[in-house]
Amino acid sequence: MKKIVIIGGGAAGAKAASKSKRLNPQNHVELYTRDENISISLCGLPYYIEGSVDDVKKLIIRTPQDFINMGIPVFLNHTLENIIPEQNCVLINGNHIFYDELILALGADVNIPKIENIFANNVFTLRSIESGVKIREKMLSSKSVILLGAGYIGIELAEAFIKNGLEVIIVEARERIASDFDEDFSKLIQDVIISKCNSKLQTYYNENAVKIIVDENNNFKSLITESGKEFFADFCVLSTGAKPNVEIAKKCGIKLGVTGAIEVDNRMRTNIKNIFACGDCTQKYDIVTREPAYLGLGTIANKEGRVAAINATCGKDFEIFDGILTSVITRFFDYTISKTGLTFQKAVEYSKKVNLEPISTVVTKKDKASYMPTASEMTLKLVADKRSGEILGAQSIGCVGNVAQRINTITSALRARLTVDELLHLDLPYAPPYSSSIDPILTAAYKLKEQIKK
Amino acid sequence: MKKIVIIGGGAAGAKAASKSKRLNPQNHVELYTRDENISISLCGLPYYIEGSVDDVKKLIIRTPQDFINMGIPVFLNHTLENIIPEQNCVLINGNHIFYDELILALGADVNIPKIENIFANNVFTLRSIESGVKIREKMLSSKSVILLGAGYIGIELAEAFIKNGLEVIIVEARERIASDFDEDFSKLIQDVIISKCNSKLQTYYNENAVKIIVDENNNFKSLITESGKEFFADFCVLSTGAKPNVEIAKKCGIKLGVTGAIEVDNRMRTNIKNIFACGDCTQKYDIVTREPAYLGLGTIANKEGRVAAINATCGKDFEIFDGILTSVITRFFDYTISKTGLTFQKAVEYSKKVNLEPISTVVTKKDKASYMPTASEMTLKLVADKRSGEILGAQSIGCVGNVAQRINTITSALRARLTVDELLHLDLPYAPPYSSSIDPILTAAYKLKEQIKK
Repeated sequence: MKKIVIIGGGAAGAKAASKSKRLNPQNHVELYTRDENISISLCGLPYYIEGSVDDVKKLIIRTPQDFINMGIPVFLNHTLENIIPEQNCVLINGNHIFYDELILALGADVNIPKIENIFANNVFTLRSIESGVKIREKMLSSKSVILLGAGYIGIELAEAFIKNGLEVIIVEARERIASDFDEDFSKLIQDVIISKCNSKLQTYYNENAVKIIVDENNNFKSLITESGKEFFADFCVLSTGAKPNVEIAKKCGIKLGVTGAIEVDNRMRTNIKNIFACGDCTQKYDIVTREPAYLGLGTIANKEGRVAAINATCGKDFEIFDGILTSVITRFFDYTISKTGLTFQKAVEYSKKVNLEPISTVVTKKDKASYMPTASEMTLKLVADKRSGEILGAQSIGCVGNVAQRINTITSALRARLTVDELLHLDLPYAPPYSSSIDPILTAAYKLKEQIKK
Repeated sequence: MKKIVIIGGGAAGAKAASKSKRLNPQNHVELYTRDENISISLCGLPYYIEGSVDDVKKLIIRTPQDFINMGIPVFLNHTLENIIPEQNCVLINGNHIFYDELILALGADVNIPKIENIFANNVFTLRSIESGVKIREKMLSSKSVILLGAGYIGIELAEAFIKNGLEVIIVEARERIASDFDEDFSKLIQDVIISKCNSKLQTYYNENAVKIIVDENNNFKSLITESGKEFFADFCVLSTGAKPNVEIAKKCGIKLGVTGAIEVDNRMRTNIKNIFACGDCTQKYDIVTREPAYLGLGTIANKEGRVAAINATCGKDFEIFDGILTSVITRFFDYTISKTGLTFQKAVEYSKKVNLEPISTVVTKKDKASYMPTASEMTLKLVADKRSGEILGAQSIGCVGNVAQRINTITSALRARLTVDELLHLDLPYAPPYSSSIDPILTAAYKLKEQIKK
């Protein structure tokens, strides 16, 4: 019988707790979280704010009671204050809790930018059920909003606000939207925004926010940027990315990686015996580049929570998490925007360190047989290494329907380090509602092959 | 300068002609076909019959004039009568045509079952633009139809007829619908048919058609089966599969494989020098089983046409076609039905020859985050080898949207011979409109891993 203490109730912590208990019901598994809920789908919040998910409770995947029914005591509103590895003990809400194995699933917090009056009223972040409810409430009584940051959450929230009749201003410090795509794809995304939103959504790039102007009640009034522009709106949401919650871990001797997140091995072990970490607080390993990476996503958290639980519970070198492909997908109105692996830009950066000659091709063709009435254009970009022929990554944009399947196909190809030649004749299933008879993936592979032969 | 003669104007022949000419515009490339059109999308015919493709001409991908503009003479209504390899010559419409390289893209014909009066009026096959037009015309003045055969074309035509208000009777000799899926999937497909069609579509299995009853004008009246049942309808369509068109090739010494189609190597060479074959007339090679297979599909024909053209034109061992995964997909109303690789049943058969222990798992879960308003159930079956962990195949059914992407993902996995362990942590892109945070593929892989560990 072991006592396994899990800190954090997000995707990683919840998964680690339930998996650990299932693996050995004799063990004592406890879950502590600083939050008021556990096991919620943060990714679903934009759809709740939009109104397509009608009840925020639907985003609670499992309740504390569900865990208690599994035999897992859950402690809400319990904040980790210290870790004392030499005593196998953590300090939570002033109490010492002893463990045989500790699983840190500390999550991430919104990256709060250094802006004067950033804590003004009506400046929101989105990392919890409660914040989602507050933003929706505010939205329903507002006419305009500023979104600080043009990443995925920014894009999804923009859609939610526009569908609810608001005027939306995106203010982004970088030079373009969705900047982890290649520049040509950011341009395509920008084109979609214009086609879908007209003047309801304004985007401003290269704008560093420096100050929030408040009224006499400390309510948000406007945002001022370094260039001197002033943007007015009823409220402001920070979609400025996330940073791993690692302060206490670091203080207590747990090693951080170069990305600033907790360094773990492929068994989710930290540098300290009997302490595992998983989810948004840990550093990832990029399968394509074999380099450290950071990306806080629920899917990864789930996998890591599972692996941490197996290794913490079974006590053997039992399960391995081999890394990520930095795959992402988002829907914007009826468009799907997705990527996996390296962008061309990223591949070029990477080629400065390793022996790599990045090549890429862009294919724009119909997402299904061109004569099908709902056929619409999609664009696929495929990146490979000219030297080895290895596929390095893909990006895709087009109407919802058949775009996601292309990127999903490439994830397996990346996982297996398939080459252009191996992808060239991939026997993808074909029927007119799903593809052109030569799938865009194959067209892209043919074009890359031409480049390789040169 | 070489003269390259291509026989057949379907997907393989058309692709071979255009590719060959592009590779070396100096060459003389000629295309002969017995048909009235070339380069048409046969797969699109059910959608034309249904009415969602409003003009049958849209199914003509390229016209003879397009080929003539490329510098490729096209001869319609020209029938191959003989091949005389020792003279590098073919006999077509009574004329001797000499070649340096010959590419046979002879296609397939509908498998005409041995039924009395099978050539009665109003008994149709669907292999050409003209037959599609005739079937649509007949449908528009009819109230009922019998579909002989319950394969993909049968399913797609059933939908087309039902949408046009007809009563449809499917009469199938085998014991179930879509019999190249596992039995549990045939059952799921049957359930979909019932839920979508009620009594508009009746299905009869294990019914061997033996005789067609005609009226005094030789018009179809009814179909009689071995068990003595008589089915009445206004007309009848044979969706009884295809058989490779190989009679002349065989007669002239071109070797057929065990499947009855022309045997080719991975460069699309037949057993006779300077004669290549591609498309529905050739035998395929199954990548998973490493055994011969036969499947006549436009996607495969395209790839083979390209490879035959490269090898015939460039004269070197230049390009290889490595085989197929027997991937298929079809839409039935708003359902997607798809598979790739081996079914469990096929894997069990195969395991009688090789060292294989097939295992499988079936996962039914939502195709997107469960709280999304359009979330609907999908079922995924994953087949693997317990011994090596290698993934062997997948089948999937569910509402149109996110089903296709799962099978596409597995095609790359099969191509790369990924194992369950390698699939387990696949970093599929996730957002609530596209998947649950643990994708059905990963759930299936987890479940298979449990079986492997036992």
